[in-house]
Amino acid sequence: MKANLQARYTERGAIPEAVIEAVPFELPALKPGQALIEVLAAPINPSDVLILTGQYGALPPLPAIGGNEGVGRVVALGPDTAGVAVGRVVLLPVGSGTWTTHLVVDAARLIALPDGADHQQLSMLAVNPPTAALLLRDFVDLQPGDWIIQNAANSAVAGYLIQLAALRGVRTVNVVRRESAVAGVAALGADVVLVDGDDLAARVSAATEGAAIKLAVDAVGGAATRRLASTLAQGAPVVAYGALSGQPAELSPRDLIFNDITLKGFWLARWFRTTAPAQQVELFAELAGLIAEGKLGAPVAATYDLSRIKEAVAAAAQGERSGKILITPNA
Amino acid sequence: MKANLQARYTERGAIPEAVIEAVPFELPALKPGQALIEVLAAPINPSDVLILTGQYGALPPLPAIGGNEGVGRVVALGPDTAGVAVGRVVLLPVGSGTWTTHLVVDAARLIALPDGADHQQLSMLAVNPPTAALLLRDFVDLQPGDWIIQNAANSAVAGYLIQLAALRGVRTVNVVRRESAVAGVAALGADVVLVDGDDLAARVSAATEGAAIKLAVDAVGGAATRRLASTLAQGAPVVAYGALSGQPAELSPRDLIFNDITLKGFWLARWFRTTAPAQQVELFAELAGLIAEGKLGAPVAATYDLSRIKEAVAAAAQGERSGKILITPNA
Repeated sequence: MKANLQARYTERGAIPEAVIEAVPFELPALKPGQALIEVLAAPINPSDVLILTGQYGALPPLPAIGGNEGVGRVVALGPDTAGVAVGRVVLLPVGSGTWTTHLVVDAARLIALPDGADHQQLSMLAVNPPTAALLLRDFVDLQPGDWIIQNAANSAVAGYLIQLAALRGVRTVNVVRRESAVAGVAALGADVVLVDGDDLAARVSAATEGAAIKLAVDAVGGAATRRLASTLAQGAPVVAYGALSGQPAELSPRDLIFNDITLKGFWLARWFRTTAPAQQVELFAELAGLIAEGKLGAPVAATYDLSRIKEAVAAAAQGERSGKILITPNA
Repeated sequence: MKANLQARYTERGAIPEAVIEAVPFELPALKPGQALIEVLAAPINPSDVLILTGQYGALPPLPAIGGNEGVGRVVALGPDTAGVAVGRVVLLPVGSGTWTTHLVVDAARLIALPDGADHQQLSMLAVNPPTAALLLRDFVDLQPGDWIIQNAANSAVAGYLIQLAALRGVRTVNVVRRESAVAGVAALGADVVLVDGDDLAARVSAATEGAAIKLAVDAVGGAATRRLASTLAQGAPVVAYGALSGQPAELSPRDLIFNDITLKGFWLARWFRTTAPAQQVELFAELAGLIAEGKLGAPVAATYDLSRIKEAVAAAAQGERSGKILITPNA
C-alpha cells in the first residue's frame, strides 16, 4: 500500500511549484459523524495557482493543503455516522484541501454523485461549471437565440459556458488570443470563434449579421476587456471573472458613458459564501447530471500522481495547455 | 440696437474655436404658440466643446447653433400663445442652440424661473446641477453621515455635488489633480480634499478614519478611475460621467472581482431621453429653488459677448479655469 501523501505549503511565493511539496501524513482516527475519503481525482485550477502565489482574493492560513475541489470514494465511516454509504462516490467539500491521498470530513458536508459517471469529469464539477452556469444565469435574462461573447474561450470555464449556452439555445461568440486555439473551441459547439484584435467589434458584427450582443464574459482584463465591451448592445454588462493578462480591466469612455455598458465582477467564492446551501446543492446536482449524461465536460491534458505535485503545478501554471491538469492520487 | 447674432458651425474639428463663428441672422415671424426669447446668459460646458470637436455621444446635424442650455426673457409672443408672460425669465429648452442673441421656441417648452434670482447662476441650471443631483440620488441609497468620493473636484459638476451632498448630510472626499486646486474646493464645503496619487486609498482611509466609502464619482478616467475604486467599500459602484484624461477607465482585477466594485456610466442626455417631462420639470424646479435661495451655485470665470464667441470657446476648452465661461449676448 502506498504511503498517505498530501500536497502541503508553508509559505506563498512567485514560483508556485517551489512552495508546494508532497509530504507523508498520518490519518487521524474517525470521530462520530466523520467519513474517510479516498481521493479519486482533483484538478489544479487557475485559482489554486493564485492561492500559491498569494494573488487570490482569499488566502487560507498557513500551513495549508493545496486543492479546492475533487471527487472521492467513501472508504470508512466514524461511529454513529449516517447519510452516506461506504463505497459511494462523493463531491469533496469546496476548499477542503483536496490534493491528498485521503481526507477526513464531516459526512454531512458530502454530496453523493451519480453512479457510473466519469470520475475525472466529476472532479471538475465544483468550480468551473458553476462559474459558467452563474455567469450565464445571473446577469442578463437570456432567451433562446440571444447572442453573448466571451474571451479566453479555450479555457475550461469558457468550454463549459459554450456547452451550457448551447443547451439553452443561446449563441456564443468566442474570442481567443491565437489562431491555433480556434479549432478546439469550434469543436465544443461554439457558434463563432474569432482571434482577438482591434477590429473585433466589426468582425463580431459581420459574423453575427449585426446581432445585439447581450452579455460579455471577460477572463483576460486589460485592453481585451475594452475590445469585448466594444461589441456589446447598448446597456449590456461585461462580467469579469478572471484577469489572465494581469492588467486592469479597461472600458472606453464612449462605451461606458454613451453606450451605457457596465463592468461587474463575478467571484464564485462570494457566491458560495452568500448562497443558501440548498441552492448550491441544487446547482451541483443539475451540473452533475449533465456531466453524467455526457452533455458537459472538459478536456484533461494530463493526470499526475501526488508524488509529482511540483511537476503538476508547474504544468498547470503554464498558459498553453490542451486541457485541465488533474491529480489522481489513488490511480 | 445690436444686430441679431448667433454662434454657428458648419463643420466639426479638433480646434473648437476654429469651427464656431458669430453670424448675423434674421428673426422669423412668430407663429401661434411660439415665443421670442432674448437670451440673458448661456454657459459653455465641456460637452459643448466635445460637440464642436465631434467627440460627443450625440451630434446635431450640420449646420448647427452652439450651446445647450441658458436662460432668457420672453420679449414677444406669437398669436394665440398662452402659458408664459412677456417679461418672464425662463429656462431655455435643453439642446436648443443657446449661443444666440434671440431664440424662437414653442412656449410650451419653456420653464418659468424664480423671479429675482441671479441670471448667470440660473443659466447653468439645466446641465451640471441635474448631473450632480442624479449622481447623488440614483446609484446608491445614501444616508446622512455616509461618505462618497469624487475626482475632478474643482469642476462645476463636482462643486454642485459638494453643495448638494452637504445639504443632505452626506460627506465628500474630493480628489484634485494639483495642490493649487485644494483651497477652492475646500471653500465650497468639502469635508476632505486630497491630491490624486498612488497612495490615495491609504490617505482616504486616514482622512475618514476608515469610513466605508459608498460611491465614487469619476470624471477623469484612466488610472484615476482605478485609484478612486481602490478607496471604496465592498460592493460599491464607480459612476463615470466624464473622461477628462481621454483614457479608458481602469479597474483592478482585485477591486472588480474580489471586492465586487462595479463601473457604470451616467449620461444626462440619456436621462433626458428616458425620463418623463414632469419628472424633469420637478428636478429643475427643486434645483432652481436652491439656486434662487443662494444654496447652490458655481463660480463664473468670465462672461463674453456673442461677438467674441471664438475667444470664449477657446477659454472654455482650456483645462485651467477658475469657473464657468458664460455667453451674455444682451448684457
